[in-house]
Amino acid sequence: METRAYDELIGRLKEHSLLASCGHVLGWDERTYMPHHGSAHRAEQMALLARMTHEMLTSPRIGELLGQAEGSLDSTTADSIPAANLREIRRSYSRAVKIPKRLVEELARVTTRAQQVWQEARQANDFAAFRPWLEKIIQLKREEAQAIGYASEPYDALLDEYEPGATAAEITRIFADLRAELVPLLKQILASGRQAAREILEREFPVAQQETFGRAAAARAGFDFDAGRLDVTTHPFCSGIGPGDCRITTRYNLRHFNDAFFGILHEAGHGIYDQGLDPAHYGTPLGSAVSLGIHESQSRLWENQIGRSRPFWQYFFPQARQAFPQALANVALDDFVFAINDVRPSFIRIEADEATYNMHIIFRFELECALVGGDLKPADVPGAWNEKFEKSFQLRPPTDALGCLQDIHWSMGGIGYFPTYTLGNLYAAQFMARARQDLGDLDADFSRGEFGRLKGWLHEKIHCQGQRYLPAELCRRVTSKPLGHQPLLDYLRNKYGLLYGL
Amino acid sequence: METRAYDELIGRLKEHSLLASCGHVLGWDERTYMPHHGSAHRAEQMALLARMTHEMLTSPRIGELLGQAEGSLDSTTADSIPAANLREIRRSYSRAVKIPKRLVEELARVTTRAQQVWQEARQANDFAAFRPWLEKIIQLKREEAQAIGYASEPYDALLDEYEPGATAAEITRIFADLRAELVPLLKQILASGRQAAREILEREFPVAQQETFGRAAAARAGFDFDAGRLDVTTHPFCSGIGPGDCRITTRYNLRHFNDAFFGILHEAGHGIYDQGLDPAHYGTPLGSAVSLGIHESQSRLWENQIGRSRPFWQYFFPQARQAFPQALANVALDDFVFAINDVRPSFIRIEADEATYNMHIIFRFELECALVGGDLKPADVPGAWNEKFEKSFQLRPPTDALGCLQDIHWSMGGIGYFPTYTLGNLYAAQFMARARQDLGDLDADFSRGEFGRLKGWLHEKIHCQGQRYLPAELCRRVTSKPLGHQPLLDYLRNKYGLLYGL
Repeated sequence: METRAYDELIGRLKEHSLLASCGHVLGWDERTYMPHHGSAHRAEQMALLARMTHEMLTSPRIGELLGQAEGSLDSTTADSIPAANLREIRRSYSRAVKIPKRLVEELARVTTRAQQVWQEARQANDFAAFRPWLEKIIQLKREEAQAIGYASEPYDALLDEYEPGATAAEITRIFADLRAELVPLLKQILASGRQAAREILEREFPVAQQETFGRAAAARAGFDFDAGRLDVTTHPFCSGIGPGDCRITTRYNLRHFNDAFFGILHEAGHGIYDQGLDPAHYGTPLGSAVSLGIHESQSRLWENQIGRSRPFWQYFFPQARQAFPQALANVALDDFVFAINDVRPSFIRIEADEATYNMHIIFRFELECALVGGDLKPADVPGAWNEKFEKSFQLRPPTDALGCLQDIHWSMGGIGYFPTYTLGNLYAAQFMARARQDLGDLDADFSRGEFGRLKGWLHEKIHCQGQRYLPAELCRRVTSKPLGHQPLLDYLRNKYGLLYGL
Repeated sequence: METRAYDELIGRLKEHSLLASCGHVLGWDERTYMPHHGSAHRAEQMALLARMTHEMLTSPRIGELLGQAEGSLDSTTADSIPAANLREIRRSYSRAVKIPKRLVEELARVTTRAQQVWQEARQANDFAAFRPWLEKIIQLKREEAQAIGYASEPYDALLDEYEPGATAAEITRIFADLRAELVPLLKQILASGRQAAREILEREFPVAQQETFGRAAAARAGFDFDAGRLDVTTHPFCSGIGPGDCRITTRYNLRHFNDAFFGILHEAGHGIYDQGLDPAHYGTPLGSAVSLGIHESQSRLWENQIGRSRPFWQYFFPQARQAFPQALANVALDDFVFAINDVRPSFIRIEADEATYNMHIIFRFELECALVGGDLKPADVPGAWNEKFEKSFQLRPPTDALGCLQDIHWSMGGIGYFPTYTLGNLYAAQFMARARQDLGDLDADFSRGEFGRLKGWLHEKIHCQGQRYLPAELCRRVTSKPLGHQPLLDYLRNKYGLLYGL
């Protein structure tokens, strides 16, 4: 293939990513250290960067170069790295040119401010304060969906940003399959008569020790702290800023071990993915994460499949006892493992166990589809949320802070983001099942605190692939099967079967 | 005046400042929280932002608009805000268009990396590791001076970036006047036979209490922590990111009270200036600090003129005793005040007392002039440094870490920056003398922990003026006199006269 156009295109893409990555630093700062009164100025900065990166990506020259480079692909290069790069650049370009610059800038500005408002509204349990911002965001995202266009549902246009190639219809189907088997499993668990001593986890866990212990576990799992950080935020996240710089955050709860520890493992899982991207392809699709669903599979895998497993704690529990002697000195390993896997309906998604977690996502997905479709008004979100929550869990959130205000996503404009969490759980289970086939006795590794073989496998099969394949195709290549709900259910049935004697 | 061209120009300037302010966030992050391996990527980000802001400022459209707007000024608008804005935009534009884009980018890239190298070289006392970077930087800055042009000395071209309108010749003259009176004063002090009990300050001052106490003092002085932060760095600085967001840093020394406390007051002084800039003029000269010398006058004023005064400690010493009972319980106020004003030649500039401090600056200024003029090779810096140091202080730095590696400035490309520190001392003394004339008994305010009247005066006379006048003109307007060395000497003679019984 003729490479001049391709090379110029890649150069421009890299520059675009570099400027976007400046925005990532600002975004991280906004949520960790920015002073309160810096919010308005930050919104202007973010809007400017959003507009400039949008301009770079939608420059007519990108269109010309794309056309020329695509034209020079032939049958010998159809499956090459350049072909994959061009496919994904075309996807981003086509999407970006359809969104008016005004809309890009307004979304950046509105969502930067809205995140601050959300943070305060959540603290004050004041949905009314957040409502006008949610209305504005939904309106802008509906405009965005119209501008992008879609085959059947406007939601698809938004979803595609996070999970390329996925559709609401497909997700509806796989979520329905999952729910059909999950609801009876949940009933079985709750009817088992067994209850974990979750009180173990609600003793006093000094924050400084939580940090040290969580940091050590993340490092042992493979998160590189020379190329990353751990900080404190209201809503934990992972931000891959660029080669050598990936940052995770958490929040500490003196009286709940799970929040920070599993949060750290979760974000470290994201971080290990980001740190595993190929720096030689930085700034191009081949050096970028493929989708939020796949990203989430990596965090879920470390948080749950590994972090909540008995072998993991065979290694870490003695250390945990040393770190938290007052809380854990008299606790047995199996009681601890049961406690961290306690299944109980609860209000907060990020504190949910693995069995109920997906029910949180399924109803959020339904609410989002209705919001984007225009069937639900933002003002009616609290009522609709509580109703759906009650149907799923036979509990009603006593406050909006424990209900529709709990998550940051909508304030960030992240509509279409939630379903990727459950996609992540599904992918994680399917990947892990395959890794166990390929690598033999991983539990023996984990019980010795060894995670290198698994990390290497994930690196080779997933991380360093970047966007070489679409998520669905990547899944087929790694596991020889399309994504299904069975591996996750098998995993949950096996785990809870043992714990609850089902 | 016809305002269309002016308005477009101001809009473009504001956008330029907004993008530059993204770089300020990245610069702050680089020196506070960035992971070690993030350095290479950060250098690329900084180079891109430097290139883009340079492109924005040097766009031919700016030249056109400037010409049009200048043409529409008439005698009625010659002393107006737009006239001042146009004068300063013209200055920046003329300067920027002369510097090739390649040089701008290379300087950004080289200095970002060099700061990391410097940090390590300083820790390892390894000048050889830093030398190639210093060579590269001096070479690039010499190129910059040639590109900008100058009437008599290349140094002037670099100095003008930090202190508009100043020249090496003028500074040489005022520094000579200062030295001529400072050297005998120093001799008198050292011959007085009195010595402060500096051991008081070298007791154990727990870091957490240092932070709390320093933060409280900065807040009391008027630094707004809702619109700012305090963090830890190797080389303390203040970064005004934009309206509502100004960040200061310090470093703590368990066994030296002065380092953090006076560092915090110093940076808070910078911060109070930045927080006092008019947000309505943000991004234009009228909303920007006028020069580093004036900026430094604000930090010196709070650090020294106020922070090392007896009235200040009449208010704060009881609190200091409570914060550091072990160290200070049995210390008398006057012994403490004498200790924090102890005059003694020492190796580290930022730890120097007010009498010797300016000697540190004067020889750095001479070294810089020689480096830029080509009379001194970077490789010969350690030798030249030690020789000049010995001449000033009859002491020879035992290591380069205590000598030419102590300061970050050269690694940042800040050649021409050092003299502004002594200019700051000179301005601070002259401003403070005038404030005492205008406001009456300020010491009574300070002894009650009240700083509002002085802060208000500084705000009105200096902070909210932005770049309305050049530094020299601002000084004349505020104090009715050109900058001189007498007010500083009067202040030092008065202070040390009392302490040392001269």
